[in-house]
Amino acid sequence: MLRSHTCGELNISHCGQTVTLSGWVQRSRDLGGMTFVDLRDRYGITQLVFNMETNAPLCQDARKLGREYVITVTGQVTERSNKNPKMPTGEIEITVGSLNVLNESKIPPFTIEDNTDGGDELRMKYRYLDIRRNTVRDNLMLRHRMGIETRNYMNQIGFLEVETPVLIKSTPEGARDFVVPSRMNEGQFYALPQSPQTFKQLLMVAGIDKYFQIVKCFRDEDLRADRQPEFTQIDCEMSFITQDDILETFEGLTKYLFKTVKGIEIEKLPRMTFAHAMKYYGNDKPDIRFGMTFVEITDLVKGHDFKVFDEAELVVGINAKACSSYTRKQLDALTDFVKRPQIGANGLVYVRFNEDGTLKSSVDKFYTEDELRQWAQAFDAQPGDLMLILAGNAGKTRKALSELRLEMGLQLGFRNPEVFAPLWVVDFPLLEWDEETRRFYAMHHPFTSPKPEDIPLLETDPGSVRANAYDLVINGVEIGGGSIRIHNKELQKRMFSILGFSDEDAQAQFGFLMNAFEYGAPPHGGIAFGFDRMCSLFGGSDSIRDYIAFPKNNAGRDVMIDSPSPIKQEQLDELKLKINLPGF
Amino acid sequence: MLRSHTCGELNISHCGQTVTLSGWVQRSRDLGGMTFVDLRDRYGITQLVFNMETNAPLCQDARKLGREYVITVTGQVTERSNKNPKMPTGEIEITVGSLNVLNESKIPPFTIEDNTDGGDELRMKYRYLDIRRNTVRDNLMLRHRMGIETRNYMNQIGFLEVETPVLIKSTPEGARDFVVPSRMNEGQFYALPQSPQTFKQLLMVAGIDKYFQIVKCFRDEDLRADRQPEFTQIDCEMSFITQDDILETFEGLTKYLFKTVKGIEIEKLPRMTFAHAMKYYGNDKPDIRFGMTFVEITDLVKGHDFKVFDEAELVVGINAKACSSYTRKQLDALTDFVKRPQIGANGLVYVRFNEDGTLKSSVDKFYTEDELRQWAQAFDAQPGDLMLILAGNAGKTRKALSELRLEMGLQLGFRNPEVFAPLWVVDFPLLEWDEETRRFYAMHHPFTSPKPEDIPLLETDPGSVRANAYDLVINGVEIGGGSIRIHNKELQKRMFSILGFSDEDAQAQFGFLMNAFEYGAPPHGGIAFGFDRMCSLFGGSDSIRDYIAFPKNNAGRDVMIDSPSPIKQEQLDELKLKINLPGF
Repeated sequence: MLRSHTCGELNISHCGQTVTLSGWVQRSRDLGGMTFVDLRDRYGITQLVFNMETNAPLCQDARKLGREYVITVTGQVTERSNKNPKMPTGEIEITVGSLNVLNESKIPPFTIEDNTDGGDELRMKYRYLDIRRNTVRDNLMLRHRMGIETRNYMNQIGFLEVETPVLIKSTPEGARDFVVPSRMNEGQFYALPQSPQTFKQLLMVAGIDKYFQIVKCFRDEDLRADRQPEFTQIDCEMSFITQDDILETFEGLTKYLFKTVKGIEIEKLPRMTFAHAMKYYGNDKPDIRFGMTFVEITDLVKGHDFKVFDEAELVVGINAKACSSYTRKQLDALTDFVKRPQIGANGLVYVRFNEDGTLKSSVDKFYTEDELRQWAQAFDAQPGDLMLILAGNAGKTRKALSELRLEMGLQLGFRNPEVFAPLWVVDFPLLEWDEETRRFYAMHHPFTSPKPEDIPLLETDPGSVRANAYDLVINGVEIGGGSIRIHNKELQKRMFSILGFSDEDAQAQFGFLMNAFEYGAPPHGGIAFGFDRMCSLFGGSDSIRDYIAFPKNNAGRDVMIDSPSPIKQEQLDELKLKINLPGF
Repeated sequence: MLRSHTCGELNISHCGQTVTLSGWVQRSRDLGGMTFVDLRDRYGITQLVFNMETNAPLCQDARKLGREYVITVTGQVTERSNKNPKMPTGEIEITVGSLNVLNESKIPPFTIEDNTDGGDELRMKYRYLDIRRNTVRDNLMLRHRMGIETRNYMNQIGFLEVETPVLIKSTPEGARDFVVPSRMNEGQFYALPQSPQTFKQLLMVAGIDKYFQIVKCFRDEDLRADRQPEFTQIDCEMSFITQDDILETFEGLTKYLFKTVKGIEIEKLPRMTFAHAMKYYGNDKPDIRFGMTFVEITDLVKGHDFKVFDEAELVVGINAKACSSYTRKQLDALTDFVKRPQIGANGLVYVRFNEDGTLKSSVDKFYTEDELRQWAQAFDAQPGDLMLILAGNAGKTRKALSELRLEMGLQLGFRNPEVFAPLWVVDFPLLEWDEETRRFYAMHHPFTSPKPEDIPLLETDPGSVRANAYDLVINGVEIGGGSIRIHNKELQKRMFSILGFSDEDAQAQFGFLMNAFEYGAPPHGGIAFGFDRMCSLFGGSDSIRDYIAFPKNNAGRDVMIDSPSPIKQEQLDELKLKINLPGF
């Protein structure tokens, strides 16, 4: 090893020892008689000192070191005269006896500091320099830890990690597949998996009754800020279980990860139905770090000549405790917030329950103070509170109010990233109606089992059928989702038919699974966690990109290696492919 | 859970308990008054008993159960009258009180037994049934265990698992890439990684000084029996190290895996140079479970009018101890063996050192017994031994003799798959000359560092330059290989030029790596292990396919899901691709 110790471990107890350190020059200060160099590696920073009086040539060499030079030094651990209590190595420095420059460095395009001067695009291009920064490196270390702990827990409770194939088969239902032309099978393609869904179900048929895998998945979607074309899942499946067994097993994993990685004890996870979440939070991934749940006052407000309310399908609001002193300007800002196109409300009605007990609203023209007092009662409001009310089409209004609730939560400091409030959302609808294509889509996926008691409704009222499907939600973010699967060939065929598959299409795409169901498929179900998202949540960040070593940008490009890129004509020829674009 | 226990855990201590088991019907025997059913799950088999006298309807239901039906039963654990000491559950049976058929099964296309009647192709097509067999399931469990133990060890010694991207950039040098057309970047392609080589080197530049990953890699090669288009590597890299540090670190991993997974203590691994391995084993992956090393007798045999020897560049043989009694038929079979086209020797010379001290050879016409006695001395042969000698071009002859040595090792029982003899082969040549294209190729890969003392030879005698490259070989199989890398941009450029890259090509394909080397690349090196191969070796099998849950066949097809397959015209259109084949 070109070092005896790392740059993060030496302290006062090592004084007098001769050590060898290797690392990068973080900074150097030339104070005339002395030159100080901060040497950095993955583990920390240690101060080196070169003395003009005792070794002039060496000190002169040290003066020539530039930022990010890679060096090895040997020297003696010495107690510092001016200690730095903020650094673990702050009590010592190395009096250097020999210096070896292992590699030089050009001046990096941005500073390797916690608060770097580099913009996003530049840091992506030089990702190998960005990872030298503490924050990015710590993120990768957190991710490593999450992986190790997940595997240890799953192994302890008897789950087998089984690798499923990456070169699979295209199933055009759902999101777009990435495809891979096969040279050995001309004109044919593999596809990259959007998830190992069918393979994990086959593993259940195969008798591997507890399966998991931390696995890359792929989706060729137009990217949003928080999506990547390749992403990582903790993918799990169990046999001979009920929904409760799955929830308890993965509640166990969740608690274990919070305990071991964050040192946080999580209580039993609440379970909330989808219907409840939509009614009280307007959202199937409620942030329950704070209350401020929805109060419906539709009946209370009708018939007072206020057209907006009279014509509304739903009038619903939240009570912002102790916010009656919100200024006109703050209320205008909130009104602007809900009227933004991506939120889409037409306006915001507020009622101030003043500290002196009086009530003052933006609709005083239509309602008496007594009537407002009835509203306040419905909202369980006290003097000092502020009621914020939206009205309109039920679905859109709930969605808009959900955004307003989250905004208020933010403004009031209820959304501390170091507080974690996980819950299960259960009883999702099986199907979702799409107005445009006028057909039902699977809300989770086509393998999800309807609740047995709702199966008769499949014929009469498909939209009301509930699924044995569940999401793990933490702080308003969907971290995982899963379902009990169909394990019966006939029911699976019926589902494909409800989803508009012809028998031939269903057979061509999923025949292998339905055939497998004829050879003794056990009852089974599972869940998949978004590992990138989970890491970013544990790390207290909104961006999954910060937790991926080499992420792609919003155009799906890796700007560091400049990929995707054109390939050679010979490669195309071998694959029997032509590019169907002008100029090719 | 649809079970209180598994089918592998009940014993005499559970007698009297009421339990619920779920699983598959392995077999049933109807003895008139009693029906016995063997119930199987991942953990074992438990005998169920149904009694006609005490519960006739239930017993009649049990008689209807077919093989591989999935059932749940509840009943009482009872001591068996005729115990089966071979089964962990052989002392008990379940007197069943209730039976629930969870799913029926068609008669499976082959028997779910250790010695199945199913052929390879059929078992691949119904892989989900094949995995129900003990042997395949045990292989997957071994693989899981290998993964868990590898990660725990690497984590303990400070390595970070970092996921590198799967969608990368095509580098046409070396094996063929699988490519992935990009919809968002028209006419451009990602490639699937043949290994994370460049990314792990970038992680070293990034200061992650100990990296590992268990990772899928891809190679679009014409497949041989032991190759798969997607395979798994344990990929590792370290900074600030010498070759010794790498060998010691991964010798540690090797010993740890043998200890924890197989319960075997491995001594210090011998290190053998490539030159030594070629000279004494004719092979850069010597099987050192046995000796029988090569003895060169070229000088000894020349000048006796035996044209074959006189014209040979090399005359070399092995001493098969205690084989002098090999019959003429056995020797003819060995001659046929070495003359097979894939081995390619012209013939085999033998010398019997008879028990009575006389010597008898197939070349008695040319050599006296005294001369043969000199050979015997060179071979360190004793009465009872058999010398087997090949002659011809040095390279081909060594290769052929290596095959013969392995065959003799097999015949003599020296190649027991439960005996493990790992070693390091070191000092590989940096470059390999290719007669056909008349240029040098990198023996390991273009990032491998020459030995510093051999760098001057790069200009004068490139073929003799040794690399800081090493392989881990176990029982004649290359399990891992790696090298110290070049970390200097100028040397890397020179290597690319020696390998025939133009500056433009080198820049286009590997510019990102060479640019990274300008910003303080540390000295680094690494290794990658073939995880599939490693698992099959630990499992005592020659076939990696047995250790992959869903392998592909020799044409790269997954016959279970029938992939690759044609994709829809809309998919091609979106990707701006045309298939360049008649009929498309």
